[in-house]
Amino acid sequence: MCKGMEVKICLIGMGNVGTSFLQLLKEKRDNIRANFNFNCKLIAIFEHDGALINNDGIDLDIILENDTNLRKNQHWKSNVKAQDLISTLDADICIETTPTNPNTGEPALTHIIEALNNNIDVISSNKAPFYLQYKKIQNLANKMNCFVKFEATVASCVPALSIKRSLIGNTISRIRAILNGTNNYILSRMTAEGISFSAALKEAQELGYAETDPTLDINGYDAAGKLVILSNELLGWSKSIEDVTIKGITKITPHALELAKLDGYVIKHLAIAEKNNLTVEPRLIKRDSPLNIQGTLNTIELQTKYAGAIILMGKGAGGFEAASAILNDLLSIVKKRRGF
Amino acid sequence: MCKGMEVKICLIGMGNVGTSFLQLLKEKRDNIRANFNFNCKLIAIFEHDGALINNDGIDLDIILENDTNLRKNQHWKSNVKAQDLISTLDADICIETTPTNPNTGEPALTHIIEALNNNIDVISSNKAPFYLQYKKIQNLANKMNCFVKFEATVASCVPALSIKRSLIGNTISRIRAILNGTNNYILSRMTAEGISFSAALKEAQELGYAETDPTLDINGYDAAGKLVILSNELLGWSKSIEDVTIKGITKITPHALELAKLDGYVIKHLAIAEKNNLTVEPRLIKRDSPLNIQGTLNTIELQTKYAGAIILMGKGAGGFEAASAILNDLLSIVKKRRGF
Repeated sequence: MCKGMEVKICLIGMGNVGTSFLQLLKEKRDNIRANFNFNCKLIAIFEHDGALINNDGIDLDIILENDTNLRKNQHWKSNVKAQDLISTLDADICIETTPTNPNTGEPALTHIIEALNNNIDVISSNKAPFYLQYKKIQNLANKMNCFVKFEATVASCVPALSIKRSLIGNTISRIRAILNGTNNYILSRMTAEGISFSAALKEAQELGYAETDPTLDINGYDAAGKLVILSNELLGWSKSIEDVTIKGITKITPHALELAKLDGYVIKHLAIAEKNNLTVEPRLIKRDSPLNIQGTLNTIELQTKYAGAIILMGKGAGGFEAASAILNDLLSIVKKRRGF
Repeated sequence: MCKGMEVKICLIGMGNVGTSFLQLLKEKRDNIRANFNFNCKLIAIFEHDGALINNDGIDLDIILENDTNLRKNQHWKSNVKAQDLISTLDADICIETTPTNPNTGEPALTHIIEALNNNIDVISSNKAPFYLQYKKIQNLANKMNCFVKFEATVASCVPALSIKRSLIGNTISRIRAILNGTNNYILSRMTAEGISFSAALKEAQELGYAETDPTLDINGYDAAGKLVILSNELLGWSKSIEDVTIKGITKITPHALELAKLDGYVIKHLAIAEKNNLTVEPRLIKRDSPLNIQGTLNTIELQTKYAGAIILMGKGAGGFEAASAILNDLLSIVKKRRGF
């Protein structure tokens, strides 16, 4: 936990998100020192094949200079695992950004639990641990008096989770959201050009919006996981992904889109939390609805009791997008630990 | 300031917003007690013609039962003014919702300064004091170690100001916003129906969206005031309304809208903060831009350095909408005072 003027950070996973986070940290460190009055000291980086641990602080400039400097460092140890070494670290905050199995949440889940068990605050960009074991993680964090934050897991940099603090004077009664940019891109293209699902998917893959194996996007599982986290955080639920009724977008035809259009509708892949139910499915919405967004954007509509719908929108993916959400979580943890 | 389990509140102005706030407080008081562990005790209500002051707490149920109970109350004093009595109150938080002169900010400005001078935290739904004397108010609040909050002044319940906390890990480089629902309604109708400005204005007045004297809306002054507050809070500026270049919407013709449409554009009345400049003026935007919202909605686009545009949208006016923003400010002040 953060005491004194130094916050000691351990990063697990230096892929796109992890590297972007380190770049952001490097770019913002003077600003953080000036505005928040603390130094971020990176004391460990874990990768799949080893770790760089240095309690005197890892030099960000050298590590980011090129891809090989991490493993060439004198403190690099091959073949060690984060789960075995977290308990030996003198870290305040553990940042978890490993590639993780969507069905088991591993290895992120083990890393998160191990960090919390060792009294280390956690920030994660991995959603699987939270849509699988939300309650277990939260209970452990409460028991250990630790913070666990995961803004990046839902709509990336869009403050879909932390907006809760800004709405405590209201009551959220329903959530409707577009949480998968790939699917929204595919449906936007099918609507605009009248092309087939498979042609739009191919285009999305060529542009890098869709994975080589797009199964988890197009079958709705990815959006369902985000919906679980969103509703647990904003509505106070304790659901897991097994509680979501999920339908994908593969059966949508240009003809169905055309029929919808005739009466002023579009078809969108909506994630809905309402009356204790969670659903991800294609739904008709009015063409002039704020939910009718184009391309890879994400959008979240919070229906409130006292102020109608409040809508949040933005990019739902990207390394720097996730990194800025992580940095936000980090600053907010430090602010809370310092009591300001 | 809030100490102990009771927060003593003084309300100045019991019009639409003030009354809605009391209704919301009544509806939420059990919830507040259960979730935030404090009681809201209303100890004073000021109106233009007198005040009800009762240190034992004013009974909300009786006051809200009908319009005459306020002045029939045994503690009602006629012909007293808030500015003369604030210093005699044992209040923690002063809530300011009086009808206020847009050019002088009075009487709200005096109430706010008087409250801060007496070490009372302030929440206001009046924007004029903040677009006229932002720096003076903030300096005084800092000097007195008081909170001054005014979420309701910009886009009402949409957390346009408090979202800042959720973006501290990012950098906002530009703001573009639609901050006046009346003007957006008028332009939406002119675009959709091809009707003239005056016909659309008349319609807006008949529907209650526009004031009988709509000058401050249509000349852009209302939006300019909100833009000042938004940019001061989110970009760290210290501007006043005199710094805004303002153009209204009265010169927009159906022909201009038609021309824009031909090339896929719409005309919107945008409030823009960019490169140390503040502007309110009609601008072309792409038809599929997220800023192309319909009706009386407000929208705020925050261009960020690390995550593209983040957009917030919702109802920009209404009694309960403002009241829920005020309650949010109140809960957030109490949370900070209590250090959680």
